[in-house]
Amino acid sequence: MSKQLNLNQTAAFLQAAEDVLILTHAHPDGDTLGSGFALLRGLRSLGKRVRLFCPDEIPPKFSFMADAIKFEHYKPQVIISVDIAARKLLGDSADDFPVIHLAIDHHAANESYAENAYIDSTAAAAAELIFNLLCQLNAPITPAIADCLYSGISTDTGCFRYSNTTAQTMRITASLLEYGARAAELNRRYFETKRKAYFAFERMALEGLRVLERGRYAVTVLTRAMYDECGANDDEAEQIAAIPRQVEGVLIGATLKERKHGGFKVSLRTYAPADASAIAKALGGGGHTRAAGCIIDNKCVNEAQELLLAAVREELTRMK
Amino acid sequence: MSKQLNLNQTAAFLQAAEDVLILTHAHPDGDTLGSGFALLRGLRSLGKRVRLFCPDEIPPKFSFMADAIKFEHYKPQVIISVDIAARKLLGDSADDFPVIHLAIDHHAANESYAENAYIDSTAAAAAELIFNLLCQLNAPITPAIADCLYSGISTDTGCFRYSNTTAQTMRITASLLEYGARAAELNRRYFETKRKAYFAFERMALEGLRVLERGRYAVTVLTRAMYDECGANDDEAEQIAAIPRQVEGVLIGATLKERKHGGFKVSLRTYAPADASAIAKALGGGGHTRAAGCIIDNKCVNEAQELLLAAVREELTRMK
Repeated sequence: MSKQLNLNQTAAFLQAAEDVLILTHAHPDGDTLGSGFALLRGLRSLGKRVRLFCPDEIPPKFSFMADAIKFEHYKPQVIISVDIAARKLLGDSADDFPVIHLAIDHHAANESYAENAYIDSTAAAAAELIFNLLCQLNAPITPAIADCLYSGISTDTGCFRYSNTTAQTMRITASLLEYGARAAELNRRYFETKRKAYFAFERMALEGLRVLERGRYAVTVLTRAMYDECGANDDEAEQIAAIPRQVEGVLIGATLKERKHGGFKVSLRTYAPADASAIAKALGGGGHTRAAGCIIDNKCVNEAQELLLAAVREELTRMK
Repeated sequence: MSKQLNLNQTAAFLQAAEDVLILTHAHPDGDTLGSGFALLRGLRSLGKRVRLFCPDEIPPKFSFMADAIKFEHYKPQVIISVDIAARKLLGDSADDFPVIHLAIDHHAANESYAENAYIDSTAAAAAELIFNLLCQLNAPITPAIADCLYSGISTDTGCFRYSNTTAQTMRITASLLEYGARAAELNRRYFETKRKAYFAFERMALEGLRVLERGRYAVTVLTRAMYDECGANDDEAEQIAAIPRQVEGVLIGATLKERKHGGFKVSLRTYAPADASAIAKALGGGGHTRAAGCIIDNKCVNEAQELLLAAVREELTRMK
């Protein structure tokens, strides 16, 4: 079990930390990277040595966050994870960090893998927590930090569309705009720009989109053949995953993404009262109420869809 | 010329007003309706008689704003327009209101058609102005009013994506969430819900999407056959019109919409430095720098695309 810290205690922990290593999760998104690089820049401004480790390559659209950042070599004294709910989310590096001193996270399901944890599941993004911590530490919010934190919040809230968006989310974002976040430019990059490959991929996904269970469930499948024919990537598959739920009347949207070495990664998106995490848990996965996921291995596409449909039906029945 | 009022003067004007009629613009959107109904509810809570007139039918997605509102008959003493930049935007009703006592608007280009005007072009939506006025008047912001104002702000900012979104926009929205605006539900309705017909329409539009001029120009065609096969409507065609510009690297996006009785309506969307209005003007149309349109008549689809391409090339050349 982690020792649970509040905002002040976490700020004090960071104030005392020296020679820090920040960990972001594998398949890095805007929140883990935005939170990580904002924390790095903020702690450095307090005179600390800070490095950041990302288990996977940083997607090009987020690579600006690392601009002009150099990594010194030293033995980390304090290891901090940001936006990481479970050790396994470090991917291949999960075993490389036997001791993680502090987890800063907004997932209610954080698995308490760290010695200390600052968890606030009311936050839409870990970036909200980093903003509050940097303010508490009187670290200046530079335009570069504001861009990182804005990126974390905007990507985790679907640009303020999702139900996780709160008054605090909006007030923090107001401050970030005043601190110089380039919101319009970042929004264009994150939400308004897609590769040709994406549109070919989306067209195929729409061709395969099926609406079932009297219009309450929509599902599509992304096969390796589709990835290959379009040259689409996982990030683009993530964008596709938002589509099935958008069909009018649908409460549960699912996207089956065939994995390189077989099996399927399932992305679930729901609207109230449907619980995505309940469906994911039934298949050995997990996540949030409105967005969750699981892996279905050793099954052909039809078997995988049947398994998923059974779990979806359970949830639809529970809702009655 | 209108007499320009500031916030306090406008609040005083409203405080003194009795038997009010509020005008919204033709082809009503979320901001004119949200501002109008929020102002109506707020002034009624101060004990005033208030009616609202909308020149066109209220779109179903906004009709909830009028729920439980009854209109008494009386001769209006004070006529107030909301989100109306020019008298002609009253459509067929433009001549029915020779005297408009107050215009509340956020368009810099407001044509000063009213006796008094409260104009703040720094506001992303007229709804921001209504919020500030209701607070000034100590009118309670009920959940119903919060829904109306949230609708105005979210629809005019593309759910906080556009460059008109400011720190004030975010702070007002934070308050609206606390006052009970059903943001997630409204976002879902305005931004996340599409008919099955739309997805079929989009799939066809993507099939026909062509990227030309070394990746700087993208164009697609929506034929009547496509409208008919999908059962898609003009509103859905408008959503398609945003797609060509979203292709990475594209500066000019065009959508040719075949008209019921022949010819094509062209929607143009650009990113700097491309000027949509310049292209539209070359073809007898007009509009804004980033969004414009024109009609191409008496041409088959290929001729129409050639004409358009010639105008696009002119603009690409000008940009060099």
